[in-house]
Amino acid sequence: MSQVFSDDAVSRAMEEIKSNPSSRGHGGAILPHMHKVSGPPKQTLFQDFKHSFNETFFSDDPFAKFKDQTKKRKFVLGLQSVFPILEWGRGYNLKSFKGDLISGLTIASLCIPQDIAYAKLANLEPQYALYTSFVAPLVYAFMGSSRDIAIGPVAVVSLLLGSLLSEEISDFKSPEYLALAFTSTFFAGVVQMALGVLRLGFLIDFLSHAAIVGFMGGAAITIALQQLKGLLGIKKFTKKTDIVSVMTSVFKAAHHGWNWQTIIIGLSFLVFLFITKYIAKKNKKLFWVSAMSPMICVIASTLSVYITRADKDGVAIVRHIEKGVNPLSINKLIFSGKYFSAAIRIGLISGMVALTEAVAIGRTFAAMKDYSLDGNREMVALGTMNVVGSLTSCYVATGSFSRSAVNYMAGCKTAVSNIVMATVLLLTLLVITPLFKYTPNAVLASIIIAAVMSLIDYEAAILLWKIDKFDFLACMGAFFGVIFKSVEVGLVIAVAISFAKILLQVTRPKTAVLGKLPGTTVYRNILQYPKAAQIPGMLIVRVDSAIYFSNSNYIKDRILKWLTDEEILRTSSEYPSIQHLIVEMSPVTDIDTSGIHSFEDLLKSLKKRDIQLLLANPGPIVIEKLHASKLSDLIGEDKIFLTVGDAVATFGPKGLDL
Amino acid sequence: MSQVFSDDAVSRAMEEIKSNPSSRGHGGAILPHMHKVSGPPKQTLFQDFKHSFNETFFSDDPFAKFKDQTKKRKFVLGLQSVFPILEWGRGYNLKSFKGDLISGLTIASLCIPQDIAYAKLANLEPQYALYTSFVAPLVYAFMGSSRDIAIGPVAVVSLLLGSLLSEEISDFKSPEYLALAFTSTFFAGVVQMALGVLRLGFLIDFLSHAAIVGFMGGAAITIALQQLKGLLGIKKFTKKTDIVSVMTSVFKAAHHGWNWQTIIIGLSFLVFLFITKYIAKKNKKLFWVSAMSPMICVIASTLSVYITRADKDGVAIVRHIEKGVNPLSINKLIFSGKYFSAAIRIGLISGMVALTEAVAIGRTFAAMKDYSLDGNREMVALGTMNVVGSLTSCYVATGSFSRSAVNYMAGCKTAVSNIVMATVLLLTLLVITPLFKYTPNAVLASIIIAAVMSLIDYEAAILLWKIDKFDFLACMGAFFGVIFKSVEVGLVIAVAISFAKILLQVTRPKTAVLGKLPGTTVYRNILQYPKAAQIPGMLIVRVDSAIYFSNSNYIKDRILKWLTDEEILRTSSEYPSIQHLIVEMSPVTDIDTSGIHSFEDLLKSLKKRDIQLLLANPGPIVIEKLHASKLSDLIGEDKIFLTVGDAVATFGPKGLDL
Repeated sequence: MSQVFSDDAVSRAMEEIKSNPSSRGHGGAILPHMHKVSGPPKQTLFQDFKHSFNETFFSDDPFAKFKDQTKKRKFVLGLQSVFPILEWGRGYNLKSFKGDLISGLTIASLCIPQDIAYAKLANLEPQYALYTSFVAPLVYAFMGSSRDIAIGPVAVVSLLLGSLLSEEISDFKSPEYLALAFTSTFFAGVVQMALGVLRLGFLIDFLSHAAIVGFMGGAAITIALQQLKGLLGIKKFTKKTDIVSVMTSVFKAAHHGWNWQTIIIGLSFLVFLFITKYIAKKNKKLFWVSAMSPMICVIASTLSVYITRADKDGVAIVRHIEKGVNPLSINKLIFSGKYFSAAIRIGLISGMVALTEAVAIGRTFAAMKDYSLDGNREMVALGTMNVVGSLTSCYVATGSFSRSAVNYMAGCKTAVSNIVMATVLLLTLLVITPLFKYTPNAVLASIIIAAVMSLIDYEAAILLWKIDKFDFLACMGAFFGVIFKSVEVGLVIAVAISFAKILLQVTRPKTAVLGKLPGTTVYRNILQYPKAAQIPGMLIVRVDSAIYFSNSNYIKDRILKWLTDEEILRTSSEYPSIQHLIVEMSPVTDIDTSGIHSFEDLLKSLKKRDIQLLLANPGPIVIEKLHASKLSDLIGEDKIFLTVGDAVATFGPKGLDL
Repeated sequence: MSQVFSDDAVSRAMEEIKSNPSSRGHGGAILPHMHKVSGPPKQTLFQDFKHSFNETFFSDDPFAKFKDQTKKRKFVLGLQSVFPILEWGRGYNLKSFKGDLISGLTIASLCIPQDIAYAKLANLEPQYALYTSFVAPLVYAFMGSSRDIAIGPVAVVSLLLGSLLSEEISDFKSPEYLALAFTSTFFAGVVQMALGVLRLGFLIDFLSHAAIVGFMGGAAITIALQQLKGLLGIKKFTKKTDIVSVMTSVFKAAHHGWNWQTIIIGLSFLVFLFITKYIAKKNKKLFWVSAMSPMICVIASTLSVYITRADKDGVAIVRHIEKGVNPLSINKLIFSGKYFSAAIRIGLISGMVALTEAVAIGRTFAAMKDYSLDGNREMVALGTMNVVGSLTSCYVATGSFSRSAVNYMAGCKTAVSNIVMATVLLLTLLVITPLFKYTPNAVLASIIIAAVMSLIDYEAAILLWKIDKFDFLACMGAFFGVIFKSVEVGLVIAVAISFAKILLQVTRPKTAVLGKLPGTTVYRNILQYPKAAQIPGMLIVRVDSAIYFSNSNYIKDRILKWLTDEEILRTSSEYPSIQHLIVEMSPVTDIDTSGIHSFEDLLKSLKKRDIQLLLANPGPIVIEKLHASKLSDLIGEDKIFLTVGDAVATFGPKGLDL
C-alpha cells in the first residue's frame, strides 16, 4: 500500500525534497517544473474489484496475520480469532485475576437486583433475567474481545422487547409469550451473527450517536415513568408506554389506588440510591458505594417487609422466584405458525438495538485503554451468546452502560470479570433466590429509576445543539418519539432523520468559490478567507464531493449558477469578464457515468458562453474515467492541471507574478 | 454570495497578488507570511438555517426575479412562472410558427399509429391513447418549460401501467379496470405535482442514468417480445411479461396457432420500418422518412386488408375504435373501496417512472440548446397535465424519447408544436378514427417493435462498462430483472443497486497518503504520483469526505491503519519513526458530533503512541465545530494550519528547505 523505504529511497527522497527550493516565480507561460497530472498505475479489473471489495468488507484486514504461516499455526490463529480467550488467556496472571475478581464481585452485586427489576420491563418472571446473567457472560468471555464490557439484561432492550412482545400477545402469563420471547432472542442472535459473518457490521453505524442519545434519554424517561406503578403501588395501570397514557393512569389512581406503605418504602430507598450516586459522582474512588447500594436496598427492604409483613397491608412483593439453574428452552422455540414472522421482526429490532448498545460501549472503553476492537467479531460473539441464551431460557442480553462503567472503575483487566459474575449468579440461582420472595416491588422500581437516570445524557444533548443543529434535531426527534409514542416510533424517527442527513449529503454537496491568498499560491474559499482575492477573468470553483448520479445535476447547475452570479457582479465592475472556469477537483474522489454526462452538458453550456473549462488536480480514479469516457479529449489534455496555481499561471493574466 | 468588485477592490486585489512573489523558502520556524486558519464570518442560527434550507430546496433560486418588484409586476411574474407560455408567447413570431407547424404535423403522423399500438400495452382500447395525445400536450404547452419535448403515451409507461393494473384486475374489459386506470393516472399526477410543489424533485435523481439505461433496454425487449403475439397471430398468449413465459407461449403455439397471412403482413412492414430507420440514421436530413413510415404502414396495411378482406382468413384487426372527442371521466375515479390503495401505489410507481423519462428528455434537449429547465416547475406541469388527463379519459402521459427527437430534428421552436399535434389529434378523433377499423394488429406490433428498438442503448451500456463497473452492474441488474421477472422487479433492483452505491459512498469514503512533489510545496496521493515523497518523521493522510456518523469510525480506524502500516515499514528502514500525523482536511466539508467523538478517540490513541496530530486546511464549518466542541483546544490552535506545506514547515525536519 505504501512505498518501502530503502536506504536509497531515503537519500533520493531527501535529495528531491531539497532540490529546487522554489519552482515558482516564472510567471505567465507553462512552468518548467510543473508536474503533469498522471493516472494511477494501471490495475486489472480483478485487482480493482478485489481492492474495493476488501476496503468495503475487510477494511480492518482480519486475515493479515494468517499470511505466510504454517497450516498448524493457521489453525491455532483461526481458533484464537473465534475464541480470543485462547490468545489473552495464555498471558493471564494472578495480578489480573485480582482485578477481575473484585470487579466481577462488584458487578454481580449490582447485577442481581437490576436483573430482578429489568425482567419486569420485559414482562417476564425475575429468574429469566438471572438466567440471562449466568449464561450470556460466560459465552461472551470466551468469544468477545472487549475487556471492560459487562454482559447481561439491560433496561432499554428489556423495555423494547416487552413492548414489542406485548403487541403480539397480551397475556404475559401464557406459555406462548415466553416461547415468543425465546424465539425472538434466537433471531436477535442470528441477526447479530449474520451481520458479523457477512461483514455488514457497518450497518449499525447508521444509527448515529445523536439518535442514540435521544433514544436512550427517551427510553430512560419512559422506563422511569413506568416505575410509578411499582413506586406508588398502583394496581390498575395502562399497558401503553407513552407519557400521556402513563400520567393519566397515575392521576386516575391518585384517590384510591396509591398505597402509602409502598410509597414510603419506594421513596426512602430512592433517596438513598440518589445519595449514594451523588457520593460516587463527587468522589470517583467511592464508586463502590453506588455500586453496592442496590443490593443493600434489596436486603434491607426484604428484611423489613419480612419482619413487618407489610405485604399484608398491600405492599406488592416479588412473591415467587424459581430456584435452580437454567432449564433448557430449546423445545420452546417456535419456527412456524402465526408468531413466526413476529419473532423474526422482534428479533431483528431488538437485536440491532442490543448490538448498537454493546458496540458503543465496547468502542468507548477500547478507545480509553487504546486496544483495538473488531466490530464484526464482536457481533459474532454477541450473536452466538444470544443464540445459546435462547436455548437455555435467557432473553436478549447485551452490554450494560452502568455495569460496564462500574466494571471499569473496579479495575477489571479481562473478560474474566464476566466469568466471576456468572459464577456468583450461579450460586445465587442455586441457593438464595427464594430469599427474594419478600422483596417489595417498590424497591425494584427505585433501583430501575436510579439506574436509568444515568442514561439521560443532557450534557451530550447540549453539546449536540452547540456542534450540529441537525444532530440535535435527530436527538430530539428520537427523544420525543419515544416518550410521546413508543420506543419503536422513536427508533424509526431516529433512523429516518439519520437517513435524511445522508440523503442531503449525497444530493447537495458543498461547492465553494476560491480566491488566492496574498503572497502564496494557495487558493481558498473566499467566504472563509475574506483576504483571498479572485483572479481577473477567471472563476475558480471547488466541488467538495464525489460526483455521482445523486448530485451530478445539482453540481452542474450550481457551477453554472456561480458563474451567472459572478458574471452579473463583474459586468458592473471594471474586472474583465470571465474567460476561464477552473474546477478544483481535489475533493472529487470519484465520478460515475452520470457525472461524466453532467460535465459534457457543462462543457456545452460553457461553449455557448465562450468560456474555457480548466480542471485542477483530478484524483486517480477521476483521471482514469475522464480518459475512458474520452471526456479528457473534449476538455483537452492541456486543460488539466496539477494545481489551481498551475492553471492560473498558464491561462491567467500575464501581469501576475505568481 | 461573492465579493463585489469596486475599482478599489480591483487594484487592491492586483496589489496583493503581485506583492510577496514568494513567501516560501524560510525553512524550519513558523513563516512570517503564513496565513492563519480562520472561521467563516459569524452567522446567526436563523441565517445559517435559512441558507441550508434554500440550498437544499431552492438551489435554483426561483424567487430571485421577484425581488424588488411592484406588486402588479410580481403578480404578472407569478402568472408567468405557472404558465411560461405567457412569457415566451409574447415574443412568438411567424418564423417560429413555421418550425412548430412542420414539427407538430410530423410528430402527429408518428403519434397516431404509435398511440393505437401503445394502448394495447396498457390493455386499453385504442381511443384512450388518442384522447391522451389530445389533452395532455395542450396542458403541457401552457405550463411546461421544455421547448422540444413531445408529450403523449409512451411504450414503457404503458407497459408498466398495464402490468401493474392487470395484477389487480385480470378482466381488461371490465369497467373497474378502466376506472382503476384513470384513478391511477390521477394519483400519478398528484405525486408529480406534490414532488414539484414540495421542491422534492431531486428525489428522481436517485434513479441513476445507468439504472435507466438498463431498465429501458429491458422494457424494450419485453415489449418487443410481447408483440410476437400480434406479429405471429397467436390467439392464446400468456399474460406474464418475463422472457421465459413469453417464449414458452410462442413455441407452444408454433404448430397450430401461427397465422401465415398475419406473419407476412407483420414481417414485411417490419422490414420496411427498419429500412426507413436505417435511411434516417445514415442521413440525418431524411429523418422524416422514418417519422412518416408508421403512418404509411398503417394506411397501406389497412387498405390492403380492406380490399382483400384478409380479416376473414384470421388476420386480427383493430375492429372497433370509438369516434369523437374525450368524454369526461371524472365520475369514474374511485376514492374508496378495495382498489383505492392499489390506485395510489400504481400512481406512485408509474408517476415516478413517467417523471424520470420526461425530465431526462427535457434535460437532454435543454443542454443541447443551452436553455435552463426548472425541474420542479416541470413536475408541476406534468402533474397537472396527468390530473387533468385523468378527468378526461386519458391515461398516464409523459415525454416520448422517439417523438421528442423527431420534434427536435423537424425544427420545433416552442411547445406550440405540441398544440399543433393536439389539433391534428382532435381532427383525427372527430373524423377519421373509424377508418382504423381494418388496421391489422400485426402492423401495430411491427410499429411497436421498430419504436422500442431505439430504447436499447447498447452503446451506453458499453460506455458504462468502460467508465464505471458499478454503474454497469446497476444497468445489468435492472435489465435482467425486467426481462426475466417483471418491470417492477427490474425497477426495484435498479433502485436498490443505486442505493447500495450511495451507502458505500457514505460509509467507505476514500483516504490517501500524501507525499511532496519534488520542487514544489504541493502534496499529492503517493499512489497516483509515484514521484511524491513522504516526509521523514511525518505521515500525511487526506480524508476525502465529510465526516459523519456513517463513516466516522471507519475513518478513524483507517487513519490508524495507515499509521500502523507505515510504522511497520519504517522500523525496517532508516527513516525516522513517525512523530507527526498530518490530516489534510480540505475535502472535509462538514463534521458532525460522531465525527468529533472519533477525533477525540483518535487523539487518545495517538497520545498513547506519542504522535502529534496536526490538521491542515479545515473548512469553515469544520473550524466552527472544532471550536464549539472545544476539540480545537485539545488539539491545540497552533496545530491547525492553512496548508500541509505550512504544517511540514513548522514541525517537519529542519534540514528541508521548503
